[in-house]
Order: sequence, then structure tokens, then C-alpha cells
Amino acid sequence: METTFDFIAFDADDTLWHSERLYAEAQKQFTQMLSNYHDAEWINDRLYQTEIRNIHHFGYGIKACALSLIETAIELTEGRISSKEIQKIVEWAKIMLNSEVELLPHVSQIIPQLSRQYPMMIITKGDLLDQETKIKKSGLGKYFQHIEIVSQKTFESYEKLLKKYSVEPRRFMMIGNSLPSDILPVLKLGGSAVHIPYEITWLHETAQEPPRDHSGYYELEDLGQLPPLLDRITENRVT
Amino acid sequence: METTFDFIAFDADDTLWHSERLYAEAQKQFTQMLSNYHDAEWINDRLYQTEIRNIHHFGYGIKACALSLIETAIELTEGRISSKEIQKIVEWAKIMLNSEVELLPHVSQIIPQLSRQYPMMIITKGDLLDQETKIKKSGLGKYFQHIEIVSQKTFESYEKLLKKYSVEPRRFMMIGNSLPSDILPVLKLGGSAVHIPYEITWLHETAQEPPRDHSGYYELEDLGQLPPLLDRITENRVT
Repeated sequence: METTFDFIAFDADDTLWHSERLYAEAQKQFTQMLSNYHDAEWINDRLYQTEIRNIHHFGYGIKACALSLIETAIELTEGRISSKEIQKIVEWAKIMLNSEVELLPHVSQIIPQLSRQYPMMIITKGDLLDQETKIKKSGLGKYFQHIEIVSQKTFESYEKLLKKYSVEPRRFMMIGNSLPSDILPVLKLGGSAVHIPYEITWLHETAQEPPRDHSGYYELEDLGQLPPLLDRITENRVT
Repeated sequence: METTFDFIAFDADDTLWHSERLYAEAQKQFTQMLSNYHDAEWINDRLYQTEIRNIHHFGYGIKACALSLIETAIELTEGRISSKEIQKIVEWAKIMLNSEVELLPHVSQIIPQLSRQYPMMIITKGDLLDQETKIKKSGLGKYFQHIEIVSQKTFESYEKLLKKYSVEPRRFMMIGNSLPSDILPVLKLGGSAVHIPYEITWLHETAQEPPRDHSGYYELEDLGQLPPLLDRITENRVT
């Protein structure tokens, strides 16, 4: 049977492997570091404001996060934070960048299996070097024909990618954990999108409601449910 | 007359536009900031050691530079640097990331002119978002068929790129200011490489001697000399 999609694309962080929990752990240590100055809620709130303000300058990823943590620490302690503590934040960044890649459930079975049926790509955002290192550590690189590391995942960036690879939107499926980054722009383009929520979601990624009535939108609990979904879609389109 | 190259590729920072002087300016301010603790030479030396040690974690670019400046400041003052001064370093990073793109001499004439004769690409390393922003600000993006932002410029990364675009090394020319990043790996692959030295070179990029006897190696003073060089090469190969 002919497949319904010319390309299926996967987000990487929190779709193929754990990532957000590294940031959550750093944030927890950060609120402990500043606990003599403020309560955790206020620290988290102010950190979030700093991160959003800095995305425009620093983009996404661990180095951007570290610079925002340093800025917030100085601001929230009115400069009383010690440089020894700031050095700790730099060390957290290195630990995060060097941490092992832990695949999400089903990934190590499903990705090789699907790669025998579909041309696949990774579309991920963040630090270039960090993403490349994680792809290498994951051992999954060989299953993907294209790996695209982008600075943002917008309607325009997906449009550009599909054009680059001459893929029609209706024959493209994206799988990921983030509604604004992986799902909504792809649906808007006319593609299919599979939302697999991760256990933690960064506040910035939770702005929207799942577009449950949108054609081409699917929601799964884990990647193990993807092959049966693809089979169902293919059967329905053919008959 | 048929052209000799299927692709000519350009480095971006300090080849198409000024970049290194931003880092040099930050470093000058940094040595002034720490001038009560150490002399400039010692500060520069230790900063360089930190940057080299951190490339493995942080890669290249302004955010990596800022984190290394912060680490070095704390180390060299044994923690006595004030957090107000550390915040200044974070602000320098933002200023660097937001600075205007100033094209090098001849670029605004030569790039459009060559793009009518040759398929061209940019191959640059550094922060993804920063490089994309500079390409956009430069107004040059439309002259390049491909823009590749890579985490490193090694023999393997060029080999992969040429394979990706099905370009034979002997029909590929790279133009750039860095011997280890733009010239030596391309020559090793069997391509042609044009070295256009920039007024300042980061210590890390000055390790090697120009390979003046290597076939396919050319050295120019500025980009204005590139079209006559290309004409000469094409004439010689054809006759």
C-alpha cells in the first residue's frame, strides 16, 4: 500500500528524548539559591519575564537560559548575589550541555521501524552545537534523511523547509510536544500534526488550546501509538 | 564560456561583514574592567585559555563569549568582581547581538555581480539566531542559493555539505578569512580556496601558515580582486 506521507518529521527535545526536565532541575536549584531573597513563585515569574524579554536577543537553548538566570539573579538580589553563585550558574550550563541523552519510551523501537516505511526528518530548535551533540549521542541520526536545526519554528520556517525539500503540505506530518512550535504552524500550512504532550511544558509553550477540531490534528499519549495511527490514516485515505 | 566552479561559497563573519572587531572591543572593555586586578596581557591570555576550554561546551559565538568572559572575570578576581560588572558583560552580549551589520569593502558590488555567473552559498559558523539575523540585516541573502550555518568547519563538515549538494570538490571554491576554518579543510578535500585575511584575527584562528604552494590556494587582499581571479582560473582551465 502506498504511504500517505512523503515525509514525517519529528521534533527532538521532549519528543524523542528528555530535555525540559534539565531546565526544570536548574530552575529548582535557582529558586533554592535565591530562597533567602524571594519565594519560589516570584523568582519563577521574574525569570520567565527575563527569558521572554531575552528570546529576541539570545534565542532558545541552554546558553540563553544561563544568561537569563544570571541576569535574573543579579536583578532579584539587587546585586547582592555572590560571584561564586554566578559561577555555579555557568557550571549548571556545562552540566546541562554534557548530560546524557535519555530517549523517551518507545523511541528506540518506533524510530527504526518507521524509517523503513517513511522518509523522515528531525526539525528542532535551540543551540546548534547542543542539538548536534544530542543527535549524535542519541544514536538516532542514521534513521533521518534530513536534520534541520532552526532558530524558530514558525509558519514561515516550515513553509521554507517544505519548499526546500519539495514536499506538499498535505503529504507532510509533524510530530511533537509543543502546540505553538510543532502543531499549529503545520496545521495552518495544510499539513498533519501529531501532538504528544510531554510531562512538563515550559510556560512559553503552553499558550494555546489543542486544536481538537482541526482536520489533520491528532493527539497521542506516546510514540508507541504512532504506527497504528499512520496505518489508520493510510487505510482511510486509500479507501 | 563555461564556468570552472559549480558552487562558490563564502564565509560570512569578517569575509562579507565586520565581526571580529565587536569581540575585540568587548575584550578591550573587559581588560579595562579588570585593570585594577591584572594587566591586559595576563587577562587576555587567561580569557583565551577559558574560551578554548569552553569551545567544547559552548561552541562559537557571542553567547559562548559572554559566558567565558563571566567565568574569567570571576576567576581572575577570585570572586571579587561585582555582580553589577557581571551584568555589564551580559549587556555587552546584547549590544553585540544587536549591532548593525557593516559590509566589508566591495561586498555590495561583487556579491550581486558574481551571483549572476555562479551558484553561491554561505557557509558560516556561530550562533544560529545571530547568524540568521546578520544575513537578514545584510540584505545579501537573496544572492545565495544555500545558507549553511554549521557548528564547526572541519574536513568532515565540508565533505558532508558537498555530498549534500552533489558538488565535486574540484568544482568547489571557498572564500574566507580563516585558514583553519575556510581554507585548509577545503584544500585537503581537493577544492579551491581563496584566503582574504581580515584586519584582526582571533588567536585561535591563526595557528597555521598559509599553504602558499598548495594547488588551488589563492590569496587576495580584498573581495574586489575575486572576479578577475575567477576569470583567470576559468581561462587557464579552458585553454
